[in-house]
Amino acid sequence: MLATVLHGPRDIRCEQVAEPKILRPTDAVIRLAATCICGSDLWPYRGLNETAGPQAMGHEYCGIVEQVGGAVKTVRPGQFVVGSFCLSDNTCPHCRFGFQSSCEQREFMTGAQAPVARVPLADGTLVATAELPPADLIPSLLATSDVLGTGWDAADAARVQPGSTVVVVGDGAVGLMGVLAASQMGAARIIAMSRHKKRQELALEYGATDIVSERGEEGIARIRQLTQNVGADSVLECVGTKESMDQALACARPGSMIGYVGVPHGVTFDGQQLFFSQRGLMGGPAPVRRFLPHLMDLVLQRKINPGKVFDLELPLADVAEGYRAMDERRAVKVLLRL
Amino acid sequence: MLATVLHGPRDIRCEQVAEPKILRPTDAVIRLAATCICGSDLWPYRGLNETAGPQAMGHEYCGIVEQVGGAVKTVRPGQFVVGSFCLSDNTCPHCRFGFQSSCEQREFMTGAQAPVARVPLADGTLVATAELPPADLIPSLLATSDVLGTGWDAADAARVQPGSTVVVVGDGAVGLMGVLAASQMGAARIIAMSRHKKRQELALEYGATDIVSERGEEGIARIRQLTQNVGADSVLECVGTKESMDQALACARPGSMIGYVGVPHGVTFDGQQLFFSQRGLMGGPAPVRRFLPHLMDLVLQRKINPGKVFDLELPLADVAEGYRAMDERRAVKVLLRL
Repeated sequence: MLATVLHGPRDIRCEQVAEPKILRPTDAVIRLAATCICGSDLWPYRGLNETAGPQAMGHEYCGIVEQVGGAVKTVRPGQFVVGSFCLSDNTCPHCRFGFQSSCEQREFMTGAQAPVARVPLADGTLVATAELPPADLIPSLLATSDVLGTGWDAADAARVQPGSTVVVVGDGAVGLMGVLAASQMGAARIIAMSRHKKRQELALEYGATDIVSERGEEGIARIRQLTQNVGADSVLECVGTKESMDQALACARPGSMIGYVGVPHGVTFDGQQLFFSQRGLMGGPAPVRRFLPHLMDLVLQRKINPGKVFDLELPLADVAEGYRAMDERRAVKVLLRL
Repeated sequence: MLATVLHGPRDIRCEQVAEPKILRPTDAVIRLAATCICGSDLWPYRGLNETAGPQAMGHEYCGIVEQVGGAVKTVRPGQFVVGSFCLSDNTCPHCRFGFQSSCEQREFMTGAQAPVARVPLADGTLVATAELPPADLIPSLLATSDVLGTGWDAADAARVQPGSTVVVVGDGAVGLMGVLAASQMGAARIIAMSRHKKRQELALEYGATDIVSERGEEGIARIRQLTQNVGADSVLECVGTKESMDQALACARPGSMIGYVGVPHGVTFDGQQLFFSQRGLMGGPAPVRRFLPHLMDLVLQRKINPGKVFDLELPLADVAEGYRAMDERRAVKVLLRL
């Protein structure tokens, strides 16, 4: 089959690879309904993560189960499933506490930018729908697999409460999903920091009440002004750079929580500074599996439309153009048709 | 009057100073019932904090109001009061969110190792009892002013829940109060890390269920063993050194919260490490004012006995010996009689 392989910085190819098979009795093999490119795929694409040789790309997926290993009990061939980008057994203590992304058996999904993919730990990872979903819901169901689940986790980690004031740092797909999540959680005020017209519009559609286009000191001053010099109750840090984290810390009020879901690159916290500013932090790879049933339900009931975050659709063969479009910020998020 | 002044590293003196007066209409002047030495006083005593000239010491206090400024409305001369080491107006947005230690008008109390002290922002800071308390409760009421309030905050910031597993790092007075707080909050298992017999005994008396005397890698291994390789739901970091914070991070499970209340000295957090280990952090100067009415009530109803943390009592004139005893860890916490 044709699948997506990263060979080196900015060298992404759609090339012939062997079709995946069941390797362990806990595996499933699924035929994807659609797949997509993640903002985090850009780290290795840009050469900012070390890669050891060619790398099968893609970790967001939904589709029909084709085959299951002998030990798989909860999903069967023919079912439509969504899984998290973090593979988990969903039975270990960390999973039971709702932190499936720290599962004792945790693996990260790979090879999902392809028509067929192997999903290890199928029982703990996959959630099946009752019926085959209508085709128009595929983008939104795909979004629950990572980007929505991650934005949701940012809001959960930042402890967004009904009536609260939320700042979302980052207008990438995860940030936009953070806006959607905060809105679903009942935040009264959602301030999205964005300089891009198209992303601002999507943020407003997803529930943002204010847009701040300034950054750095000016952005902080604007947030201070909008919050009567108090700062936000919750801040969703959805980028992972030093600049975005500094922005998040400065926009938060004492006693607030910052939920950070962008993998930090070059971020350190000074203990004494964090102490005296009294900011709380909770971050990590999102435990999407915890949220998945609820999020899939919201999609299937058409209460949310996270699929709108895909503003460019390409056939899998054009995956390289998809990476370029996201790298150059021409696209928020690219859906790949199979 | 005779009061405590720090002149330089390990040069602490009880010397003649002018009696404090009302300086602002929001001030009160109180006659202290007793005072004490705080673990944080040891930072400047040891020369680890820069001090600019002689410094009036002491920030824990309770006693009888002698005089109030013209704007003070909630306390009056003759009342017995306890106040937080953080002075706050208790009306600004941060105070209303319960983070009085980040009050827009925040000041830190000074000069309380003395028979008489000036308390700025008296209305927002002081809590009066309905009647004059019996003399035997003075040590426990004094403890609510900082050491108990700070241990309580560590447990609150670490989100101790009924039935949860808690590790307390640090067997100083604050750590011991953290044990008491976790116990009051219903923790099922409270593991106190302590190498000192006397402190271990006090920890057990305050509700610890397990004592771990090992430190570093051995201490971590012991906690892993006691928690079936999971880690604690909540960790109270009550020291503030790099070693104690490393210990706290390693003893916590993914998704847990670490409440840290020791002023961090030489502590930095690596963003990516914190992210992938999925530890939550919340720290800062304790907003004791939030907890004060409840804590004073627990003391007055004789439900808790935090005053037992004072294991050495000295007259104020012997304050230098008190500092030495705490510096050399001969005493957990020193009460100064006036």
